[in-house]
Amino acid sequence: MTVLPRTGLGMDVHAFASSDSPRELWVAGLYWPGERGLAGHSDADVVAHAAADALFSAAGLGDLGSNFGTSEPEWAGAAGAVLLAEAAARVRAAGFEIGNVAVQLVGNRPRLGSRRDEAQAVLGAAAGAPVTVTATTTDGLGLTGRGEGLAAVATALVVPL
Amino acid sequence: MTVLPRTGLGMDVHAFASSDSPRELWVAGLYWPGERGLAGHSDADVVAHAAADALFSAAGLGDLGSNFGTSEPEWAGAAGAVLLAEAAARVRAAGFEIGNVAVQLVGNRPRLGSRRDEAQAVLGAAAGAPVTVTATTTDGLGLTGRGEGLAAVATALVVPL
Amino acid sequence: MTVLPRTGLGMDVHAFASSDSPRELWVAGLYWPGERGLAGHSDADVVAHAAADALFSAAGLGDLGSNFGTSEPEWAGAAGAVLLAEAAARVRAAGFEIGNVAVQLVGNRPRLGSRRDEAQAVLGAAAGAPVTVTATTTDGLGLTGRGEGLAAVATALVVPL
Repeated sequence: MTVLPRTGLGMDVHAFASSDSPRELWVAGLYWPGERGLAGHSDADVVAHAAADALFSAAGLGDLGSNFGTSEPEWAGAAGAVLLAEAAARVRAAGFEIGNVAVQLVGNRPRLGSRRDEAQAVLGAAAGAPVTVTATTTDGLGLTGRGEGLAAVATALVVPL
Repeated sequence: MTVLPRTGLGMDVHAFASSDSPRELWVAGLYWPGERGLAGHSDADVVAHAAADALFSAAGLGDLGSNFGTSEPEWAGAAGAVLLAEAAARVRAAGFEIGNVAVQLVGNRPRLGSRRDEAQAVLGAAAGAPVTVTATTTDGLGLTGRGEGLAAVATALVVPL
Repeated sequence: MTVLPRTGLGMDVHAFASSDSPRELWVAGLYWPGERGLAGHSDADVVAHAAADALFSAAGLGDLGSNFGTSEPEWAGAAGAVLLAEAAARVRAAGFEIGNVAVQLVGNRPRLGSRRDEAQAVLGAAAGAPVTVTATTTDGLGLTGRGEGLAAVATALVVPL
């Protein structure tokens, strides 16, 4: 194999918003009506953020903070799917083909299963590559099990062109 | 490279059973005599479950819940290695070759080292591909460090045929 | 594709040292002056340790504990970058080419961004392959959010020669 693919990894965690400051829940590129929202300056979409971070990680382009942080404040309020699309564009501009991204949502709610296809379509369109979305719970343990927040872990594969 | 491999990721957590309802411990496809068991409807084998979820994640076939959940109750009590074998069969039936699976057990006990080869043989036979099993602790911190439960994180690589 | 690459995964967690027993902080192969150190017999470099464990995981060579544990006490106090270099040497000696390693630091401090290039240079030289280093926080939640310790998660890709 003359050119090896590269693997990357990204994790993200956001706390649920307090009931004093309710927010809409955006996860995996989708709006979840009736679900408790996550706190944050952005839309706090842990799935999209982890996916974008995994792409940056694989390509060696820094991370979400260095790409969309205080140095580029125009991205501060961007939706997760928009950040994922921009991350994919930067990875391609740096000379990589994107193989795939796989993200797992970790938490009690929302229940992803019935909207998996929709989530994969939105995030896959954003990334321009297959994005698979899975979910698990942590059996009542840890920050996600106690319902303090949501986490997501992603891996990505890219290939230098 | 004409056909890119795909990477996937799976994490699983189970709480230890209470002393009121003792259970056998099954981890990494093995029975661990004398060790405190994990709670759950299944055998709660976090290592086998994370491995199966990583395969589903890589192939885009949903997750453990959508494959073996309430819609297919015949799998509810299946052993972890049996679920892994069935996951591998579904991934192959969907048109993928399985490259490998790598799983890390996170927790204080059991001590995996002395039975690593045995675990890798059982899980590798189930998956029909190399399954590597490693272990770490979390220095007394978090849900695994406090001994509340066990976690496992897995990655898998598959190739579309 | 005749020879498939293999993916691996490694996670590591270390607690911060108590103020009674202050230690230097070593993370991602770098010394961080003025930052609170991590406890441990080794230098507790979670980033280097996770990277080494991901390489062992991909190659099926056991883990940090089985390679550098009580059976080989000469490694007990080795720096993280030295362990990573030795891990890479063992992976190559077992017949694998190393594609890349991607590590994410999870925690509040140190702030990796300004020293990312330096960290990637040190760890990449140790591994003899590209090592990308990213960072994230957990929004005040969990063991890292509460400032109890630092975590790192890594993935690696190797190819059998």
